[in-house]
Amino acid sequence: MKELNEAIRKWGKTIGKDIVKVDMFLNHRIDTGLMFRMGEALADHFASCRPDLILTVEASGIALALACARALGDIPVVFAKKGSTVVQNEEMVTSKVYSFTHKTESTIRADRRYLPEGSVVLIVDDFLADGQAVHGMMDLCEQAGCRVCGVGIGIEKGFQPGGENLRRRGTDLYSLAIVDRIDENGNVCLREE
Amino acid sequence: MKELNEAIRKWGKTIGKDIVKVDMFLNHRIDTGLMFRMGEALADHFASCRPDLILTVEASGIALALACARALGDIPVVFAKKGSTVVQNEEMVTSKVYSFTHKTESTIRADRRYLPEGSVVLIVDDFLADGQAVHGMMDLCEQAGCRVCGVGIGIEKGFQPGGENLRRRGTDLYSLAIVDRIDENGNVCLREE
Repeated sequence: MKELNEAIRKWGKTIGKDIVKVDMFLNHRIDTGLMFRMGEALADHFASCRPDLILTVEASGIALALACARALGDIPVVFAKKGSTVVQNEEMVTSKVYSFTHKTESTIRADRRYLPEGSVVLIVDDFLADGQAVHGMMDLCEQAGCRVCGVGIGIEKGFQPGGENLRRRGTDLYSLAIVDRIDENGNVCLREE
Repeated sequence: MKELNEAIRKWGKTIGKDIVKVDMFLNHRIDTGLMFRMGEALADHFASCRPDLILTVEASGIALALACARALGDIPVVFAKKGSTVVQNEEMVTSKVYSFTHKTESTIRADRRYLPEGSVVLIVDDFLADGQAVHGMMDLCEQAGCRVCGVGIGIEKGFQPGGENLRRRGTDLYSLAIVDRIDENGNVCLREE
Protein backbone atom coordinates (compact mmCIF):
# COMPACT_ATOMS: atom_id res chain seq x y z
CA MET A 1 0.00 0.00 0.00
CA LYS A 2 1.69 3.11 -1.31
CA GLU A 3 0.46 5.50 1.39
CA LEU A 4 1.54 3.14 4.17
CA ASN A 5 4.97 2.63 2.59
CA GLU A 6 5.39 6.41 2.46
CA ALA A 7 4.36 6.76 6.10
CA ILE A 8 6.88 4.08 7.13
CA ARG A 9 9.65 5.84 5.16
CA LYS A 10 8.71 9.23 6.59
CA TRP A 11 7.89 8.41 10.21
CA GLY A 12 9.31 4.97 10.97
CA LYS A 13 12.28 4.85 13.34
CA THR A 14 14.63 1.91 13.37
CA ILE A 15 16.47 0.49 16.37
CA GLY A 16 19.28 -1.88 15.49
CA LYS A 17 18.69 -4.46 12.78
CA ASP A 18 15.18 -5.61 13.57
CA ILE A 19 12.99 -3.02 15.30
CA VAL A 20 10.83 -0.61 13.30
CA LYS A 21 8.92 1.85 15.47
CA VAL A 22 5.75 3.24 13.93
CA ASP A 23 4.40 4.88 17.07
CA MET A 24 3.70 8.07 15.14
CA PHE A 25 0.81 6.71 13.09
CA LEU A 26 0.03 3.10 13.99
CA ASN A 27 0.49 1.88 17.54
CA HIS A 28 0.59 4.78 19.98
CA ARG A 29 -0.65 7.72 17.97
CA ILE A 30 -3.13 6.63 15.31
CA ASP A 31 -3.41 8.49 12.01
CA THR A 32 -7.17 8.00 11.78
CA GLY A 33 -7.55 8.62 8.05
CA LEU A 34 -4.68 6.30 7.16
CA MET A 35 -6.00 3.63 9.53
CA PHE A 36 -9.38 3.58 7.79
CA ARG A 37 -7.76 3.45 4.34
CA MET A 38 -5.67 0.50 5.59
CA GLY A 39 -8.85 -1.19 6.81
CA GLU A 40 -10.46 -0.60 3.40
CA ALA A 41 -7.46 -2.09 1.59
CA LEU A 42 -7.68 -5.25 3.71
CA ALA A 43 -11.44 -5.39 3.17
CA ASP A 44 -10.99 -5.13 -0.62
CA HIS A 45 -8.69 -8.15 -0.53
CA PHE A 46 -10.83 -10.31 1.77
CA ALA A 47 -14.40 -9.28 0.88
CA SER A 48 -14.83 -12.25 -1.47
CA CYS A 49 -14.29 -14.77 1.35
CA ARG A 50 -17.22 -13.16 3.22
CA PRO A 51 -15.93 -13.39 6.79
CA ASP A 52 -18.53 -13.49 9.57
CA LEU A 53 -16.25 -11.74 12.02
CA ILE A 54 -12.74 -10.41 12.56
CA LEU A 55 -10.48 -11.74 15.30
CA THR A 56 -7.56 -9.66 16.57
CA VAL A 57 -5.61 -9.38 19.81
CA GLU A 58 -5.45 -6.43 22.20
CA ALA A 59 -4.25 -3.75 22.17
CA SER A 60 -2.78 -2.34 18.99
CA GLY A 61 -4.61 -4.72 16.64
CA ILE A 62 -7.99 -3.30 17.63
CA ALA A 63 -7.89 -0.13 15.52
CA LEU A 64 -7.04 -1.86 12.24
CA ALA A 65 -9.55 -4.64 12.94
CA LEU A 66 -12.32 -2.11 13.58
CA ALA A 67 -11.48 -0.11 10.45
CA CYS A 68 -11.55 -3.30 8.37
CA ALA A 69 -14.81 -4.46 9.98
CA ARG A 70 -16.38 -1.12 9.09
CA ALA A 71 -15.35 -1.53 5.45
CA LEU A 72 -16.76 -5.08 5.41
CA GLY A 73 -20.22 -3.81 6.31
CA ASP A 74 -19.96 -3.59 10.10
CA ILE A 75 -19.19 -7.23 10.86
CA PRO A 76 -18.28 -7.84 14.54
CA VAL A 77 -14.73 -7.67 15.90
CA VAL A 78 -13.57 -10.01 18.64
CA PHE A 79 -10.34 -9.09 20.37
CA ALA A 80 -8.53 -11.85 22.22
CA LYS A 81 -7.41 -10.75 25.65
CA LYS A 82 -3.96 -11.18 27.07
CA GLY A 83 -3.14 -12.78 30.37
CA SER A 84 -5.14 -15.08 32.55
CA THR A 85 -8.37 -13.99 34.16
CA VAL A 86 -10.00 -14.51 37.53
CA VAL A 87 -13.09 -15.88 35.80
CA GLN A 88 -11.70 -18.91 33.93
CA ASN A 89 -14.20 -21.43 32.70
CA GLU A 90 -14.88 -23.94 29.95
CA GLU A 91 -16.51 -21.18 27.92
CA MET A 92 -13.03 -19.81 27.27
CA VAL A 93 -10.54 -20.96 24.64
CA THR A 94 -6.92 -20.16 25.44
CA SER A 95 -3.57 -20.44 23.68
CA LYS A 96 0.05 -19.88 24.66
CA VAL A 97 1.97 -17.25 22.73
CA TYR A 98 5.75 -17.00 22.90
CA SER A 99 7.27 -13.58 22.26
CA PHE A 100 10.75 -13.76 20.72
CA THR A 101 11.10 -10.01 21.30
CA HIS A 102 10.41 -10.14 25.02
CA LYS A 103 11.49 -13.78 25.58
CA THR A 104 8.31 -14.44 27.50
CA GLU A 105 5.37 -16.76 27.14
CA SER A 106 1.89 -15.36 27.61
CA THR A 107 -1.67 -16.58 27.27
CA ILE A 108 -4.37 -15.19 25.00
CA ARG A 109 -8.01 -16.06 25.49
CA ALA A 110 -11.41 -15.58 23.93
CA ASP A 111 -14.95 -16.45 24.92
CA ARG A 112 -16.37 -19.28 22.81
CA ARG A 113 -19.72 -17.53 22.62
CA TYR A 114 -18.15 -14.85 20.44
CA LEU A 115 -16.51 -17.37 18.11
CA PRO A 116 -19.57 -19.41 17.11
CA GLU A 117 -18.82 -22.85 15.70
CA GLY A 118 -18.74 -22.83 11.91
CA SER A 119 -17.97 -19.12 11.62
CA VAL A 120 -15.66 -17.83 8.89
CA VAL A 121 -13.02 -15.72 10.63
CA LEU A 122 -10.61 -13.13 9.24
CA ILE A 123 -7.58 -12.62 11.50
CA VAL A 124 -6.21 -9.06 11.56
CA ASP A 125 -3.17 -7.64 13.34
CA ASP A 126 -1.04 -4.53 13.04
CA PHE A 127 2.32 -6.35 12.92
CA LEU A 128 3.59 -9.75 11.81
CA ALA A 129 7.07 -10.84 12.86
CA ASP A 130 7.54 -14.39 14.10
CA GLY A 131 3.86 -15.09 13.68
CA GLN A 132 3.28 -16.35 17.20
CA ALA A 133 0.27 -14.12 17.85
CA VAL A 134 -1.35 -15.19 14.56
CA HIS A 135 -0.70 -18.86 15.37
CA GLY A 136 -2.27 -18.33 18.79
CA MET A 137 -5.36 -16.82 17.19
CA MET A 138 -5.56 -19.67 14.65
CA ASP A 139 -5.39 -22.07 17.56
CA LEU A 140 -8.29 -20.26 19.29
CA CYS A 141 -10.34 -20.54 16.07
CA GLU A 142 -9.58 -24.24 15.71
CA GLN A 143 -10.62 -24.94 19.30
CA ALA A 144 -13.84 -23.00 18.75
CA GLY A 145 -14.61 -24.83 15.49
CA CYS A 146 -14.21 -21.76 13.27
CA ARG A 147 -12.61 -21.60 9.82
CA VAL A 148 -9.91 -18.99 9.21
CA CYS A 149 -10.34 -17.54 5.71
CA GLY A 150 -7.24 -15.36 5.79
CA VAL A 151 -4.83 -13.16 7.69
CA GLY A 152 -4.65 -9.40 7.10
CA ILE A 153 -1.62 -7.52 8.42
CA GLY A 154 -0.57 -3.89 8.55
CA ILE A 155 3.21 -4.29 8.50
CA GLU A 156 5.03 -7.57 7.96
CA LYS A 157 8.67 -7.89 8.92
CA GLY A 158 9.81 -9.90 5.92
CA PHE A 159 13.13 -10.78 7.53
CA GLN A 160 11.38 -12.72 10.28
CA PRO A 161 9.79 -16.09 9.53
CA GLY A 162 6.11 -15.51 10.37
CA GLY A 163 5.00 -14.50 6.88
CA GLU A 164 6.88 -17.20 5.00
CA ASN A 165 5.64 -19.90 7.37
CA LEU A 166 2.03 -18.86 6.80
CA ARG A 167 2.42 -18.68 3.01
CA ARG A 168 4.05 -22.11 2.95
CA ARG A 169 1.03 -23.50 4.77
CA GLY A 170 -1.22 -22.03 2.08
CA THR A 171 -2.76 -19.33 4.26
CA ASP A 172 -4.18 -16.35 2.38
CA LEU A 173 -1.87 -13.79 3.98
CA TYR A 174 -2.16 -10.19 2.85
CA SER A 175 0.26 -7.64 4.30
CA LEU A 176 -0.20 -3.97 3.42
CA ALA A 177 3.54 -3.32 3.72
CA ILE A 178 6.53 -5.64 3.97
CA VAL A 179 9.82 -4.51 5.51
CA ASP A 180 12.51 -6.62 3.84
CA ARG A 181 15.38 -5.43 5.99
CA ILE A 182 16.94 -2.56 7.87
CA ASP A 183 20.18 -1.60 6.16
CA GLU A 184 23.50 -0.69 7.77
CA ASN A 185 22.51 3.01 7.86
CA GLY A 186 19.29 2.24 9.70
CA ASN A 187 17.09 2.77 6.63
CA VAL A 188 13.96 0.71 6.16
CA CYS A 189 14.02 -1.29 2.91
CA LEU A 190 10.47 -2.00 1.77
CA ARG A 191 9.40 -4.72 -0.65
CA GLU A 192 8.21 -3.20 -3.92
CA GLU A 193 4.52 -3.57 -4.60
CA MET B 1 -28.26 6.88 24.08
CA LYS B 2 -31.33 4.76 23.50
CA GLU B 3 -29.65 2.04 21.42
CA LEU B 4 -26.86 1.63 23.97
CA ASN B 5 -29.35 1.46 26.86
CA GLU B 6 -31.21 -1.28 24.99
CA ALA B 7 -28.00 -3.20 24.37
CA ILE B 8 -27.09 -2.99 28.07
CA ARG B 9 -30.56 -4.24 29.04
CA LYS B 10 -30.45 -7.04 26.48
CA TRP B 11 -26.84 -8.22 26.72
CA GLY B 12 -25.37 -6.86 29.95
CA LYS B 13 -24.64 -9.41 32.68
CA THR B 14 -24.36 -8.36 36.28
CA ILE B 15 -22.10 -9.88 38.93
CA GLY B 16 -23.00 -8.90 42.46
CA LYS B 17 -23.85 -5.29 43.19
CA ASP B 18 -21.27 -3.48 41.13
CA ILE B 19 -20.05 -5.35 38.04
CA VAL B 20 -21.78 -4.97 34.67
CA LYS B 21 -20.25 -7.14 31.96
CA VAL B 22 -20.78 -5.89 28.42
CA ASP B 23 -18.37 -8.28 26.72
CA MET B 24 -20.97 -9.09 24.10
CA PHE B 25 -20.86 -5.73 22.33
CA LEU B 26 -18.30 -3.41 23.89
CA ASN B 27 -15.11 -4.81 25.35
CA HIS B 28 -14.40 -8.29 24.06
CA ARG B 29 -16.74 -8.66 21.11
CA ILE B 30 -17.40 -5.31 19.44
CA ASP B 31 -20.73 -4.58 17.76
CA THR B 32 -19.15 -2.51 14.99
CA GLY B 33 -22.26 -0.63 13.89
CA LEU B 34 -23.21 0.29 17.46
CA MET B 35 -19.62 1.34 18.21
CA PHE B 36 -19.61 3.80 15.31
CA ARG B 37 -22.99 5.21 16.32
CA MET B 38 -21.62 5.67 19.85
CA GLY B 39 -18.61 7.49 18.40
CA GLU B 40 -20.92 9.73 16.37
CA ALA B 41 -23.01 10.55 19.46
CA LEU B 42 -19.88 11.62 21.36
CA ALA B 43 -18.69 13.61 18.34
CA ASP B 44 -22.05 15.45 18.12
CA HIS B 45 -21.66 16.53 21.72
CA PHE B 46 -18.02 17.60 21.53
CA ALA B 47 -17.68 18.90 17.95
CA SER B 48 -18.14 22.51 19.06
CA CYS B 49 -15.05 22.40 21.28
CA ARG B 50 -12.99 21.45 18.18
CA PRO B 51 -10.55 18.98 19.75
CA ASP B 52 -7.18 18.54 18.04
CA LEU B 53 -6.90 14.93 19.13
CA ILE B 54 -8.47 12.20 21.25
CA LEU B 55 -6.64 10.60 24.16
CA THR B 56 -7.69 7.18 25.45
CA VAL B 57 -6.01 4.29 27.23
CA GLU B 58 -5.39 0.79 25.91
CA ALA B 59 -7.03 -1.59 25.34
CA SER B 60 -10.81 -1.35 25.33
CA GLY B 61 -10.94 2.45 24.97
CA ILE B 62 -9.35 2.31 21.54
CA ALA B 63 -12.42 1.28 19.54
CA LEU B 64 -14.70 4.04 20.85
CA ALA B 65 -11.92 6.62 20.52
CA LEU B 66 -11.32 5.64 16.90
CA ALA B 67 -15.03 5.72 16.06
CA CYS B 68 -15.34 9.19 17.62
CA ALA B 69 -12.19 10.43 15.86
CA ARG B 70 -13.66 9.28 12.55
CA ALA B 71 -16.85 11.24 13.19
CA LEU B 72 -14.81 14.33 14.12
CA GLY B 73 -13.17 14.39 10.69
CA ASP B 74 -10.32 11.93 11.20
CA ILE B 75 -8.50 13.70 14.02
CA PRO B 76 -5.66 11.60 15.51
CA VAL B 77 -6.11 9.20 18.43
CA VAL B 78 -3.40 8.74 21.03
CA PHE B 79 -3.71 5.74 23.30
CA ALA B 80 -1.82 5.84 26.56
CA LYS B 81 0.03 2.62 27.23
CA LYS B 82 -0.08 0.65 30.43
CA GLY B 83 2.93 -0.50 32.38
CA SER B 84 6.48 0.68 32.34
CA THR B 85 8.67 0.37 29.28
CA VAL B 86 12.27 -0.54 28.64
CA VAL B 87 12.76 2.71 26.77
CA GLN B 88 11.93 5.32 29.43
CA ASN B 89 13.04 8.86 28.74
CA GLU B 90 12.14 12.49 29.32
CA GLU B 91 10.02 12.41 26.17
CA MET B 92 7.48 10.35 28.10
CA VAL B 93 4.80 11.64 30.49
CA THR B 94 3.61 9.10 33.05
CA SER B 95 0.93 8.91 35.72
CA LYS B 96 -0.01 6.43 38.43
CA VAL B 97 -3.48 4.90 38.22
CA TYR B 98 -5.01 3.03 41.14
CA SER B 99 -7.59 0.38 40.31
CA PHE B 100 -10.22 -0.05 43.04
CA THR B 101 -11.48 -3.16 41.21
CA HIS B 102 -8.13 -4.93 41.14
CA LYS B 103 -6.61 -3.18 44.18
CA THR B 104 -3.44 -2.50 42.24
CA GLU B 105 -1.54 0.57 41.17
CA SER B 106 -0.30 0.76 37.61
CA THR B 107 1.40 3.32 35.41
CA ILE B 108 0.10 4.82 32.19
CA ARG B 109 2.37 6.66 29.79
CA ALA B 110 2.32 8.68 26.59
CA ASP B 111 4.95 10.19 24.37
CA ARG B 112 5.05 13.98 24.63
CA ARG B 113 5.54 14.28 20.88
CA TYR B 114 2.00 13.01 20.35
CA LEU B 115 0.49 15.43 22.87
CA PRO B 116 1.82 18.72 21.47
CA GLU B 117 1.84 21.63 23.91
CA GLY B 118 -1.27 23.78 23.54
CA SER B 119 -3.39 21.03 21.96
CA VAL B 120 -7.08 20.75 22.78
CA VAL B 121 -7.68 17.16 23.89
CA LEU B 122 -10.88 15.13 24.17
CA ILE B 123 -10.52 12.20 26.58
CA VAL B 124 -12.56 9.10 25.63
CA ASP B 125 -12.97 5.80 27.45
CA ASP B 126 -15.41 2.91 27.34
CA PHE B 127 -16.14 2.83 31.09
CA LEU B 128 -16.12 5.32 33.96
CA ALA B 129 -16.27 4.00 37.52
CA ASP B 130 -13.97 5.57 40.10
CA GLY B 131 -12.48 7.85 37.49
CA GLN B 132 -8.86 6.93 38.15
CA ALA B 133 -8.03 6.26 34.49
CA VAL B 134 -9.57 9.59 33.44
CA HIS B 135 -7.64 11.41 36.18
CA GLY B 136 -4.46 9.73 35.00
CA MET B 137 -5.10 10.89 31.43
CA MET B 138 -5.87 14.44 32.65
CA ASP B 139 -2.57 14.34 34.51
CA LEU B 140 -0.73 13.31 31.32
CA CYS B 141 -2.37 16.22 29.46
CA GLU B 142 -1.41 18.70 32.17
CA GLN B 143 2.21 17.54 32.14
CA ALA B 144 2.28 17.86 28.36
CA GLY B 145 0.75 21.35 28.43
CA CYS B 146 -2.51 20.34 26.72
CA ARG B 147 -6.01 21.56 27.52
CA VAL B 148 -8.73 18.95 28.13
CA CYS B 149 -11.99 20.14 26.56
CA GLY B 150 -14.12 17.28 27.80
CA VAL B 151 -14.51 13.63 28.68
CA GLY B 152 -16.64 11.27 26.57
CA ILE B 153 -17.63 7.93 28.08
CA GLY B 154 -19.49 4.87 26.83
CA ILE B 155 -20.95 3.59 30.11
CA GLU B 156 -20.75 5.44 33.42
CA LYS B 157 -21.36 3.57 36.66
CA GLY B 158 -23.39 6.23 38.40
CA PHE B 159 -23.11 4.50 41.78
CA GLN B 160 -19.35 5.00 41.80
CA PRO B 161 -17.89 8.45 42.40
CA GLY B 162 -15.91 9.11 39.19
CA GLY B 163 -18.69 10.91 37.30
CA GLU B 164 -19.85 13.09 40.17
CA ASN B 165 -16.29 14.12 41.00
CA LEU B 166 -15.68 15.23 37.42
CA ARG B 167 -18.98 17.16 37.20
CA ARG B 168 -18.26 18.88 40.51
CA ARG B 169 -14.96 20.08 39.07
CA GLY B 170 -16.82 21.56 36.10
CA THR B 171 -15.55 19.05 33.55
CA ASP B 172 -17.73 18.66 30.46
CA LEU B 173 -18.47 14.98 31.01
CA TYR B 174 -20.78 13.24 28.56
CA SER B 175 -21.69 9.61 29.21
CA LEU B 176 -23.76 7.75 26.61
CA ALA B 177 -25.34 5.55 29.29
CA ILE B 178 -25.39 5.76 33.07
CA VAL B 179 -26.00 2.69 35.23
CA ASP B 180 -27.56 4.01 38.43
CA ARG B 181 -27.53 0.74 40.31
CA ILE B 182 -27.88 -3.01 40.12
CA ASP B 183 -31.01 -4.06 41.99
CA GLU B 184 -31.47 -7.04 44.31
CA ASN B 185 -32.56 -9.24 41.37
CA GLY B 186 -29.40 -8.44 39.42
CA ASN B 187 -31.19 -6.09 37.02
CA VAL B 188 -29.39 -3.07 35.63
CA CYS B 189 -31.20 0.20 36.47
CA LEU B 190 -30.34 2.84 33.89
CA ARG B 191 -30.71 6.58 34.35
CA GLU B 192 -33.50 7.93 32.14
CA GLU B 193 -32.35 10.14 29.30
